[in-house]
Amino acid sequence: MTEKTPNTPPTETEAPNILRQFLRGDDGTDRLSQIKALHPADFADQFEQLTNDARQGFAENNATLISPEILAELEDEVVEDILPFLPAGQIAEALTELDSDDATQIFEEMEDEQREEILEVLEPEDRANIEASLAFDDETIGRLMQREFVAAPPFWTVGDTVDHMRATGENLPDLFFNIWIVDTRFHPIGYIPVSVLMRHPRNTELSALLNDQIITIEQNMDQEEAAYIFEKYHLISAPVLDDDGRITGIMTADDIIDIIQDENKEDMLALAGVSDAGVTDTALSTVQARAPWLLLNLLTAILASFVIAFFDYTIDQFVQLAILMPVVASMGGNAGTQALAVAVRSLAERDLTPQNAWRAIRREALAALINGFIFAAMLAVIAYIWFDRQDIAIVAFIAMIINHFFAGIAGISIPLGLKKMGLDPAVSSSVFVTTVTDVIGFLAFLGFAALMLL
Amino acid sequence: MTEKTPNTPPTETEAPNILRQFLRGDDGTDRLSQIKALHPADFADQFEQLTNDARQGFAENNATLISPEILAELEDEVVEDILPFLPAGQIAEALTELDSDDATQIFEEMEDEQREEILEVLEPEDRANIEASLAFDDETIGRLMQREFVAAPPFWTVGDTVDHMRATGENLPDLFFNIWIVDTRFHPIGYIPVSVLMRHPRNTELSALLNDQIITIEQNMDQEEAAYIFEKYHLISAPVLDDDGRITGIMTADDIIDIIQDENKEDMLALAGVSDAGVTDTALSTVQARAPWLLLNLLTAILASFVIAFFDYTIDQFVQLAILMPVVASMGGNAGTQALAVAVRSLAERDLTPQNAWRAIRREALAALINGFIFAAMLAVIAYIWFDRQDIAIVAFIAMIINHFFAGIAGISIPLGLKKMGLDPAVSSSVFVTTVTDVIGFLAFLGFAALMLL
Repeated sequence: MTEKTPNTPPTETEAPNILRQFLRGDDGTDRLSQIKALHPADFADQFEQLTNDARQGFAENNATLISPEILAELEDEVVEDILPFLPAGQIAEALTELDSDDATQIFEEMEDEQREEILEVLEPEDRANIEASLAFDDETIGRLMQREFVAAPPFWTVGDTVDHMRATGENLPDLFFNIWIVDTRFHPIGYIPVSVLMRHPRNTELSALLNDQIITIEQNMDQEEAAYIFEKYHLISAPVLDDDGRITGIMTADDIIDIIQDENKEDMLALAGVSDAGVTDTALSTVQARAPWLLLNLLTAILASFVIAFFDYTIDQFVQLAILMPVVASMGGNAGTQALAVAVRSLAERDLTPQNAWRAIRREALAALINGFIFAAMLAVIAYIWFDRQDIAIVAFIAMIINHFFAGIAGISIPLGLKKMGLDPAVSSSVFVTTVTDVIGFLAFLGFAALMLL
Repeated sequence: MTEKTPNTPPTETEAPNILRQFLRGDDGTDRLSQIKALHPADFADQFEQLTNDARQGFAENNATLISPEILAELEDEVVEDILPFLPAGQIAEALTELDSDDATQIFEEMEDEQREEILEVLEPEDRANIEASLAFDDETIGRLMQREFVAAPPFWTVGDTVDHMRATGENLPDLFFNIWIVDTRFHPIGYIPVSVLMRHPRNTELSALLNDQIITIEQNMDQEEAAYIFEKYHLISAPVLDDDGRITGIMTADDIIDIIQDENKEDMLALAGVSDAGVTDTALSTVQARAPWLLLNLLTAILASFVIAFFDYTIDQFVQLAILMPVVASMGGNAGTQALAVAVRSLAERDLTPQNAWRAIRREALAALINGFIFAAMLAVIAYIWFDRQDIAIVAFIAMIINHFFAGIAGISIPLGLKKMGLDPAVSSSVFVTTVTDVIGFLAFLGFAALMLL
């Protein structure tokens, strides 16, 4: 065994793309051994940086370099692109070798024709696993879980368990962290971390070691729900139960990290009005992801314009109103967005629940009034100094307080309302909130102006 | 052993607060055994829902119910509040029993006086671990890592390793997933998952089992960097190296999930202009967390007002400009926010790097021009129909395209610029972006109007 320095991964700027250099093939270096030494995740990263043509060429000519682990690391879109260029035998082998969650994900990217071809050559067990996973909805645990796990009855000893694992070998998951202890109906009654099992003599009975504070998740659970449970209980893995309470698979923390990042990305982009959280690689897909929300924004902005148009006579008399109008709208929009982001995040983290919603709304309302008062006073002073008109200052003052108040209320109650209706509180809520703040802002400002100045 | 149904955790709405019922103590139920059956994470959740007084009373009168695991689960602020009410002996015991990362976190929340008291009674090893962790900055791996781990030389056999673990017992980490294989200088040269070790006969040499594709992190690394490495390589645990490349601790995926959630929350709230990502429990702390950004927004909005004021004569002549002005500003602001959110997220995920920044900027610019053209055309048609004036429609058309273009450019280049300066690309970038879109929007719209209409 030769000694190696461990790989603290290089930062993006340092890392040359070995695959690209290999495809150019003009520098005489032995790239092949460098490629084989790449971690699957690094291979996948470099492969994804290649052009589509280069990827397909690589898949066609160097299929054997694309190991099952690399397939599991590649983005879905990239897997879809190269699958047609890989030999059926190699794909089938990969599906057999990988744990069922990764195998299912690769299988999903195949065309119908290729699926049939592959299903025919798969072992019945692997085939059954993939078909069982595909029967579940996207983003549910049944689709995402791994169906390989290690279970043992409580009356086994440490020795029995170790012997069993040595005997089954190949059919065990690649890695596992807990032994699930099950009763005769295969319901989990506890767990033993492998690191605990190892420390005890062969004749210890599992029932003496098991921890019965076991947290389970359900196969029909939404991925977001499962992620929340992992986060709350600091889990590394959890058993998944079927509808009869039998253990049918497991989820592990590394897959949960992917789920959490997907959900966070979705929320953040949804709040900013970007529909498609997927790859936006081209200008055209960027346009597609954003235009629908811009259209909605155009319509609501026109709505606000109608409000302004209603007061055109007042503006005609006092051009100062046109000058200050955007300040009132912008401050309201900003305050509303702040309240909205906090509410969406609190909903995601379950800090905001139906139980404490009223308390949170009251808190937002009070905070909005306080901030409204502070900034209304500032704007009033500025307006008074600028235009030397007390009446315009008073109008700005009243409008700012009203707008802040409604901004706070809208910022928290719109996501709460969406959630209550079973909708995603992040999606479309910012358009609603800014519509409220624009319309109310202009209405309050120009309305009071019309009352007081004319 | 009695059989139990596993706990799929109840949803928030179902769960009664057992601790609150216990404190009321009026229903004759044996709450004590219910409390003892609570998972530490559930105990912590229910405890956090109590009022501050109730928490301190509970800590004073029922200190023994607050186990070390519960202390590790509680939010920092809550730990800080109750520590003065717990007996020093119990705290010291908790610090000894917990892994060093959790112990350090609890220690951080103590007052100086209590720290000294506790340090005196701690075992030298626990004391050294805590002091070593505290020497690192907040949010670095050295502060967050666990200092207990299992390492073995490559020439040991499976049997040697198992015997060693049985002998050291208490000083091992509570849970571990990998055995780190080290050379004579304690540099890691590979790892063996515990689940792999278990499957092999006692006389197998570790060198035959080890996987040398080991991913390591460094003690001075920022937590965000470490989280990225875990995500990329799908790690469950990773060794942490000191400055000489020796293994000095480990990080595990459950702690990484906490880090990821903190970082995501920070980014999302920063984008919305909320400074303090911490607990905003009262209206006053809510005001404090938001007022600074509202103040900044007021100043930039006034800046935009100056632009409008510069064209007051033009607006006086054409009140239609005042009506459409907010539409141009709002569309630009929206487009800018979209580009900004995508850029901030891509930076966080390392999809946007110095290498592909130019490509991304060009893509944003092109997408902005396309969307700008689409919505400029729509607004022009609406303006023409509404006001029956071709010239105002043309002004709106040109201003919208210009504003969209700058919104896209600002949305991606401002976070890139902040990142390049070593600043957080999420913090304050939305204020910059909307300032650009407001100022340029009004300038383009009113400027062209002055040129064309007067």
